[in-house]
Amino acid sequence: MKHISEIKHAFEQFLLAKTEHLPHASEIAYLLKNVHQENPEDFRGMLGRIPQDVRGEVLLELPEKLKEEAIECYSSEELAEAVEGLDSDDAAELIEDIVDFDEDKSEAVYEKLDEEDREDIDKIRSYEDDQAGAWMQTELFEATLDETVRDAIARLKRLKEEGELENVHQLYIVNDEHRLVATLALEDMILMDFEQTFRAQMGPKEFRSVEATDDIDEVATIFEQYDFAVLPVVDHDSRLVGRITSDDIFDVIEERATEQIYNLAGVNDEVEQEEDIKGVFKNRASWLFVNLLTAILASVVIGLFDATIAAYVPLAILMPIVASMGGNAGTQTLTVMVRQMALGDIEFGNAKSALYKEIAVALLNGLLFALIMGLIAWAWFQLPLLGVVIGMAMIINLFIAGFFGASIPLLLKRLNIDPAVGSTVLLTTATDVFGFFSFLGLAKIILL
Amino acid sequence: MKHISEIKHAFEQFLLAKTEHLPHASEIAYLLKNVHQENPEDFRGMLGRIPQDVRGEVLLELPEKLKEEAIECYSSEELAEAVEGLDSDDAAELIEDIVDFDEDKSEAVYEKLDEEDREDIDKIRSYEDDQAGAWMQTELFEATLDETVRDAIARLKRLKEEGELENVHQLYIVNDEHRLVATLALEDMILMDFEQTFRAQMGPKEFRSVEATDDIDEVATIFEQYDFAVLPVVDHDSRLVGRITSDDIFDVIEERATEQIYNLAGVNDEVEQEEDIKGVFKNRASWLFVNLLTAILASVVIGLFDATIAAYVPLAILMPIVASMGGNAGTQTLTVMVRQMALGDIEFGNAKSALYKEIAVALLNGLLFALIMGLIAWAWFQLPLLGVVIGMAMIINLFIAGFFGASIPLLLKRLNIDPAVGSTVLLTTATDVFGFFSFLGLAKIILL
Repeated sequence: MKHISEIKHAFEQFLLAKTEHLPHASEIAYLLKNVHQENPEDFRGMLGRIPQDVRGEVLLELPEKLKEEAIECYSSEELAEAVEGLDSDDAAELIEDIVDFDEDKSEAVYEKLDEEDREDIDKIRSYEDDQAGAWMQTELFEATLDETVRDAIARLKRLKEEGELENVHQLYIVNDEHRLVATLALEDMILMDFEQTFRAQMGPKEFRSVEATDDIDEVATIFEQYDFAVLPVVDHDSRLVGRITSDDIFDVIEERATEQIYNLAGVNDEVEQEEDIKGVFKNRASWLFVNLLTAILASVVIGLFDATIAAYVPLAILMPIVASMGGNAGTQTLTVMVRQMALGDIEFGNAKSALYKEIAVALLNGLLFALIMGLIAWAWFQLPLLGVVIGMAMIINLFIAGFFGASIPLLLKRLNIDPAVGSTVLLTTATDVFGFFSFLGLAKIILL
Repeated sequence: MKHISEIKHAFEQFLLAKTEHLPHASEIAYLLKNVHQENPEDFRGMLGRIPQDVRGEVLLELPEKLKEEAIECYSSEELAEAVEGLDSDDAAELIEDIVDFDEDKSEAVYEKLDEEDREDIDKIRSYEDDQAGAWMQTELFEATLDETVRDAIARLKRLKEEGELENVHQLYIVNDEHRLVATLALEDMILMDFEQTFRAQMGPKEFRSVEATDDIDEVATIFEQYDFAVLPVVDHDSRLVGRITSDDIFDVIEERATEQIYNLAGVNDEVEQEEDIKGVFKNRASWLFVNLLTAILASVVIGLFDATIAAYVPLAILMPIVASMGGNAGTQTLTVMVRQMALGDIEFGNAKSALYKEIAVALLNGLLFALIMGLIAWAWFQLPLLGVVIGMAMIINLFIAGFFGASIPLLLKRLNIDPAVGSTVLLTTATDVFGFFSFLGLAKIILL
């Protein structure tokens, strides 16, 4: 991102008509954020100075709270103009945002849109958030087989002049029922004879499309696997309804990664984005509550050995080490498994070798840290047998960590549960319970 | 991904010349993985049956171990053919892989490439892995300002026929010194008068390019922010050297996310990908060793209170609960901070409000779990004051968790250290040490 003073200067220059280059919407949004931090009054003032044709894009780039404030500031006429300046997918998103903040205002805005825009927005909003249809844009460059290339180009020209179409990439060929029958890259169209029809120049060729009800995560995987920059979207009846472009996929990949990272830590990505403290508190507390139950379970295990601890207090001093090492080693294994499963590198087919690898690494670590910690415990409390006890417990618990760290995600996946959700708490339960039990149990047998 | 039997069938049909549609390289790679699991001998047999022009792509899609085996199987002539069938960026990657597995063979392969391919590969390999130049492809559609559009199209046709160019998207206009002076989308070129020069039809227009030495992560951020599908790459002297496309960015985003997820859990993404047990063990052990030191530090803190524990053993039973809740709450905060900082949602400018939010959530959780755990401890050990002690310790430790969880990543970032690396261990140290100290310290003062 450019420096804020640079953006500010460019923006002022544009307003003074000293340059034709308006900063990019994301840069103006960045500037707005900055202005808001310094003085919320100036923020409101600046909103009115943003050129009308980029207002929509700027609004979409603002963080939730500022977006809400901006939507409040603008009149419904201004918002309708902002929506109309956007591509259909972005227009639907902005309408969605206005609905979230102010339902009445959203209706007023919606009423002011023209018929065609309303239809496009309705179509996109009819799909669930995780369906391809919710991510597509409806602006397309399309043609029929019996049109000449020249006629299609004339239409492209009109669409471009109207500002309806950007980043075209592909032409979509449809039949009379508006079913998609072929896709044609612009670079191939350019090499065609412009006076002839598409039918005369196109052989049968495989093409790929996605359905509007397809899961957007799976669509993203297709883009990644086959290196697509754009894909057409069809309805259940093969009719062309829109297209998804690589910039949508950037967002999907980032969101998916955020979801995984958050779920592993026991937070919900959607709640966190809302930036509402009450919601965040409730969501995090519910996860911490589950964690409290497992911690109590671990304490119950410790409670079984209260007489042992009373007889030899150093056990209480050392026992968190065994649990902590197990938890950390298990988290390493778990994280690698969850991520590699998400990327498709580990499937049930090759899960066995991944499991073996994790157990091998766990045992090696177990031996290493058994030795290190055994010597430390011996030296610390001047009792060789205490070293033996903690060493054995370390081997057992690091094995448990590797075994459960690798198998919990696989098991959850088999049960059709997202491995990123819940894996961590199950693992911690295992390493805590086994860690305390093995260490205190061995101590009771060997030391007392 | 299609079902394996479908891919197998399609592949067989192609080999029998019953269809012209060869499955995609990633599908063939998937089939190969499957065959290898069932019978490694069949895997070697199948390698020879892969049509020559997709061998390179298939090789690149294989997991490391199988890739190594396949590179071993193919002769250096076969590998050279595979490399020549690839786009320059992929060719450079495959050469890199061959170097990793067998340096002598890589030289033999390299010698067999033609001059031009060698130059392209050398150029790409001259950049570091994290530089844009290492990710670019050198195949381009370029023209000069004084060429006519028709001449440029004639060259495009030749390049396409030679299979040199795919997914063109943009034309790059260079001057006599091969400096990039403009970019032109194909959709705009198509609307031009083909008989005139570019100079006659193009006004001055801003365009964006990246430098070959730019950090690829920053390039990815530019793609995401401005919704690009392709960007030209220039050298330090503004000379056009290549281009980066959206599929490269998909990979960068996924890799960056993997790196963050792994770093938070104390594993190294590059080492994990090697699939070498010794390397993985060494890397993970070094992280566990750091963790061991912090665990020992926590034990030293417990050791300060050995007389307190000896006097009242339930303290040993309950103390891991305080530490565990702090660790988990802190991880929630830490994860959200690290991810939002990586996505650019949190910067120093708005860090204060993020910090306040985290502390507010931490205090709310502290009050809630102080109450719950206070009541449980009271009921469990029939001692009201024990409930007061654990409740107070819970509030203190959850506050510590929120405060350090939010400020450690900010502090590391300010010190120019990647917040994902090392945050976790610093946080655990804080929550363990403060957790044990506050609980046992309060117990000593209040209970004994």
